[in-house]
Amino acid sequence: MTLRNIRSNNYPEWFQDVITAADMAEGSVSPGCMIIKPWGYGVWMRIRRTLDDMFAETGHENYYFPMFIPLSFFQKEADHVEGFAKEMALVTHSKVRKNEEGKLVPYGALEEPLVVRPTSETIIADAFAKWVVSYRDLPILMNQWANVVRWEMRPRLFLRTREFLWQEGHTAHATAEEAEAEANQMLEVYRSMCEDTMAMPVITGQKPEHEKFPGAVTTLCVEAMMQDGKALQAGTSHYLGQNFSRPANIAFQNRDGEKEFAYTTSWGVSTRLVGGLLMSHADDEGMNTPPKVAPYQIVIVPMIKDESMREPIMAYVAKLEAALRSQTAFGEKIRIKTDKRNKESVDKYWEWARKGAPIICEVGIRDVEGEKIMSKIRCRMNTPEHKKLLPFNDFVATAGALLEEIQAEMFAKAKARMEANIRTDITTLEELKEYFTPKSGWLEDDKKSHPAFVLAKWSEDKDTIPLLKEMGITIRCIPFAYQDGKDGKCILSGKPAVKYAIFARSY
Amino acid sequence: MTLRNIRSNNYPEWFQDVITAADMAEGSVSPGCMIIKPWGYGVWMRIRRTLDDMFAETGHENYYFPMFIPLSFFQKEADHVEGFAKEMALVTHSKVRKNEEGKLVPYGALEEPLVVRPTSETIIADAFAKWVVSYRDLPILMNQWANVVRWEMRPRLFLRTREFLWQEGHTAHATAEEAEAEANQMLEVYRSMCEDTMAMPVITGQKPEHEKFPGAVTTLCVEAMMQDGKALQAGTSHYLGQNFSRPANIAFQNRDGEKEFAYTTSWGVSTRLVGGLLMSHADDEGMNTPPKVAPYQIVIVPMIKDESMREPIMAYVAKLEAALRSQTAFGEKIRIKTDKRNKESVDKYWEWARKGAPIICEVGIRDVEGEKIMSKIRCRMNTPEHKKLLPFNDFVATAGALLEEIQAEMFAKAKARMEANIRTDITTLEELKEYFTPKSGWLEDDKKSHPAFVLAKWSEDKDTIPLLKEMGITIRCIPFAYQDGKDGKCILSGKPAVKYAIFARSY
Repeated sequence: MTLRNIRSNNYPEWFQDVITAADMAEGSVSPGCMIIKPWGYGVWMRIRRTLDDMFAETGHENYYFPMFIPLSFFQKEADHVEGFAKEMALVTHSKVRKNEEGKLVPYGALEEPLVVRPTSETIIADAFAKWVVSYRDLPILMNQWANVVRWEMRPRLFLRTREFLWQEGHTAHATAEEAEAEANQMLEVYRSMCEDTMAMPVITGQKPEHEKFPGAVTTLCVEAMMQDGKALQAGTSHYLGQNFSRPANIAFQNRDGEKEFAYTTSWGVSTRLVGGLLMSHADDEGMNTPPKVAPYQIVIVPMIKDESMREPIMAYVAKLEAALRSQTAFGEKIRIKTDKRNKESVDKYWEWARKGAPIICEVGIRDVEGEKIMSKIRCRMNTPEHKKLLPFNDFVATAGALLEEIQAEMFAKAKARMEANIRTDITTLEELKEYFTPKSGWLEDDKKSHPAFVLAKWSEDKDTIPLLKEMGITIRCIPFAYQDGKDGKCILSGKPAVKYAIFARSY
Repeated sequence: MTLRNIRSNNYPEWFQDVITAADMAEGSVSPGCMIIKPWGYGVWMRIRRTLDDMFAETGHENYYFPMFIPLSFFQKEADHVEGFAKEMALVTHSKVRKNEEGKLVPYGALEEPLVVRPTSETIIADAFAKWVVSYRDLPILMNQWANVVRWEMRPRLFLRTREFLWQEGHTAHATAEEAEAEANQMLEVYRSMCEDTMAMPVITGQKPEHEKFPGAVTTLCVEAMMQDGKALQAGTSHYLGQNFSRPANIAFQNRDGEKEFAYTTSWGVSTRLVGGLLMSHADDEGMNTPPKVAPYQIVIVPMIKDESMREPIMAYVAKLEAALRSQTAFGEKIRIKTDKRNKESVDKYWEWARKGAPIICEVGIRDVEGEKIMSKIRCRMNTPEHKKLLPFNDFVATAGALLEEIQAEMFAKAKARMEANIRTDITTLEELKEYFTPKSGWLEDDKKSHPAFVLAKWSEDKDTIPLLKEMGITIRCIPFAYQDGKDGKCILSGKPAVKYAIFARSY
């Protein structure tokens, strides 16, 4: 039941095939936009709920700002950002009429065009400027869940769609220290989200100058390694200093009675994370969803081969569902689904396997008679540990623990893969070039056949950037871990360098 | 501490004042759009979560469709709907450049303009048409949480903003009966949401022909009575028959192997509900939030008049918060907030009172010494039952029950007001005209000074509609309750009529 395209064969097509097989999303008549389907949306909602709880615990509140921003709000940016050219959706009319041929056309031109938010920095800063008067009004700790639009020319489901869903945090503080601590704190929230909830290991670090968010003092990031070795920027947290508060005039009277500009931060993650989740865990059979973000953690599929057996099987299934409903995993009630649709059992099983439901229980008449439960553990497919036959009570009693075990196992597997694919033995430009030169094929667990991450010293010298472009790679970050503080040599320039950087191809 | 504008003085300004006093939302630089602030957004999220759980329990799944819909998708509608003229936001360009004067202007005209969804019927029907092949693919039970845009010319916070948040359910079924049952079921979900969660009594009924959603076979609705006697349409549920599936070609092979068009429904509620909540419960002191939708149900305000008392008071507050955290109301953990901001206690108290936090505990040194808790019950303000002084343990043990009591009390009060304001003694056109003729003043609990609902028989005759317009009223619905099945006389035409209708001014 392997997918049409497998990873080693055609990775980009495999990505698309997994999305289709798991029915997570599909393209739409709206160019470059996607329809997010229940399994994909359900995963996103688990991510959203977990983050939302963490945001609340760290004192943030949710706001909702208008999605239309007057075009003039981008004027300041345009005046200061060299080569300003935005791919933005512009609303220019507010009415529709029929032309002479009876075809609908826009009319009612707006006085000022409106931009559909690509991000809300400008409109939020404008509100902050009104709300903040004194240091007593600070900090403002806000978050927003919203859709945003960036006019991507090469859209890809989840990774790059013109409209996508995200959260954007925006905060304003009375001191630089507090704002920097905030940016660090939110990076840690993202790390925890990726690793502890999505079972997706990440490297935390700081972006080099040339990769920063324009205007940021520092941009922190979490970078994940996909199965093809490419990096995916999973989330960013920016310390903006006074760079945004000054032009927006977010000023306050400080404790000494003096006027001061606030210190701001912003941070965000998007539905792109769902693409990262897929490329961290899916295999050649389809999606593989970590229990913490799976819309359903246990799916029960009744196996009715003979209609006369329907009644006892369905009674047993109901008993199983009821028993599981009182069980917990990760401190929450287990999410269970019994698939009662009028379809072939084997097709139903494969649908759930391709969605990557963590545990699938197939219930046939022999299980009823033997008071057993046959469960299949998705992440162990194609291994001897895939199936488990347990007495009913034992299965129910251990289901929560099994889900927790699966979560840990998936993280450990992804983490081991990431660590095995960080090369530390590449130290010269020639080796680096050779490593990133495209070669045929790509195979999972074959470290040599595709390039992944290289950890090497870098001088932070601007002149080295063109070399990266030549190789088709970027510096993902200066990782916080993996530093030794010792003097070394820049892999690109050969000049003295102290810090290690992560070099990789990326999404 | 009464608001600047009170209900009897200037009702529309009072509405605005409550929103400001409770800090639920504010206008924005984006014309006609609002910034929803934490207390307003928090209320909406409680509504959303409750509905989302009810949708899931009734078998619905969440999808997310693109917000941009090609303009041509509205062509069919335009060809069939007489006088088609939509106030819609149109995206016509995808780039921005500087003109000769350095001013930003749109460029990069799109091949086809895109409409920012005013509702998603057309784009969802298009997807359903692709997904549905056989009766086995039915029903499709979907819901979407989204922002939508309608180019309102007279925007009002929560009631009518150009962008608002809503949910839209869309379902497709193999039989008319099943689809009709679905529309009825969702109306009941809305009734329960309004009454059992928002403590806002509603009348359920069916819209008359001329008030139906264009194209619907039947439109069901929940109508609430605001404190000024006007009706607010709180939610609608449409049975669409095959009227939408036929043009969209949502066809399936039925059990007999024949091609048949699906039977569809749609249903929705929006952030307008927050406006309805306000006008159901707020008073001249500000908002009054029912516990089930209050972001915080109990707010603790430390009263520190003397800095030397800070430590024992804060320790006692921490003990109270910890004790309350193990308590439940409505089967969920109580939502608690301790207001530790560096502001005057009395100001903090009034902020929460104006937000309508259900219970506010003011903790001063005398409470610490006496091991007591002083609580103020918002919905009982200006009555002898407003304050309650209880021993610490008694307060904690009864807090959940008190919240449940408050919820019931708020519903009972609103329900009594609604029932007292449904006039059944108006039976002639002259009386009806007199009743709805504008008069000076409006006073709460003074039934005679403002018109509310009239329950009277109506012939359903089209010719009577102009009379309604003259009086500035509409028929809100044919209510399901309040029918006697007896022959009577139409209040408008004097002709025979069996059914009762609700007549009212409306938002």
